[in-house]
Amino acid sequence: MLNRQLENKKVALLATNGFEESELRSPMKALVDEGATVHVISLKEEPIRGWHKGNWAMDPVHVDHTVYTANPAEYAGLVLPGGVMNPDALRGDEKAVDFVRGFFELGKPVAAICHAPWTLINAEVVEGRKMTSYHTVRKDLENAGAHWVDEPVVVDQGLVTSRNPGDLEAFNRKVVEEIAEGIHQAQKQSV
Amino acid sequence: MLNRQLENKKVALLATNGFEESELRSPMKALVDEGATVHVISLKEEPIRGWHKGNWAMDPVHVDHTVYTANPAEYAGLVLPGGVMNPDALRGDEKAVDFVRGFFELGKPVAAICHAPWTLINAEVVEGRKMTSYHTVRKDLENAGAHWVDEPVVVDQGLVTSRNPGDLEAFNRKVVEEIAEGIHQAQKQSV
Repeated sequence: MLNRQLENKKVALLATNGFEESELRSPMKALVDEGATVHVISLKEEPIRGWHKGNWAMDPVHVDHTVYTANPAEYAGLVLPGGVMNPDALRGDEKAVDFVRGFFELGKPVAAICHAPWTLINAEVVEGRKMTSYHTVRKDLENAGAHWVDEPVVVDQGLVTSRNPGDLEAFNRKVVEEIAEGIHQAQKQSV
Repeated sequence: MLNRQLENKKVALLATNGFEESELRSPMKALVDEGATVHVISLKEEPIRGWHKGNWAMDPVHVDHTVYTANPAEYAGLVLPGGVMNPDALRGDEKAVDFVRGFFELGKPVAAICHAPWTLINAEVVEGRKMTSYHTVRKDLENAGAHWVDEPVVVDQGLVTSRNPGDLEAFNRKVVEEIAEGIHQAQKQSV
């Protein structure tokens, strides 16, 4: 239990139905292992279901707060799991997009994997940022002004992105590192 | 059986697993009712499954040809059903994107509903076009240079787009109309 990097830190994990199962559970475990308290934030205060190998996952995930009550000021950072349906639903919800944008306004670390960067496009925070994503989202990120690269994990001033579940180990390491570092002033410039 | 508008015309319908069930079956019926022969084109030569009210649909759809063997020159037009997972998979496949692009190069009518315009973004044919889509895809279309409007069906020189299954009646009517008209020279200018 010594040297846990996120002791006394609260981290928000924003997701809704259809998140890629491993992309929620794996970062959550990595954060908790480092001493963080993780709150799952969603669109409604009811359990959400992941997506695993082409079907709905068995065990639902408990939701702690909704985007209507959660406040970015209370969290040290934000993690966005992928899956195709999950970010598609989040980006279509104005309150969810505002919640994400709030972390950038405060200079707090934000991590997005796979299709999750779609939500960042709607938050209008990707212009000029170095990022990666699932390959199908590349064009949308480039059209939104991001500098897209094909690497397992990309860190740009508090913004952490990865391509797919195969990148989770590298993703989790950088998620912990960036949140441990705290505020990144340059994050604010993207808003 | 008199006055069928698409007698002796072959129409391609491109989809893969996760298409919105109604957005494939309803236009297919409308086309067949007007005398067209409809070929379902997909990534692999195996049946594909739709998405219906939050779950995989029961009955698979037969695939006639793959994007590796089908040729846009043989069809009078192309229909792209939506669903979230379906166009996400198609846009990530280079051959599928080339197949779609082929219809624009030939000035042939193309119809896309819901999330299907994602594939058109990767085909790089939306710049300057007046279009609609499912609301979550709006930002990606605007960033790609499209002029997005919130209407049940939008027709721009052979390009037909609609927002969601609720628009199918208006969508189908315009799909039939544009394909009956034939080549639209202005479609070529978007390539």
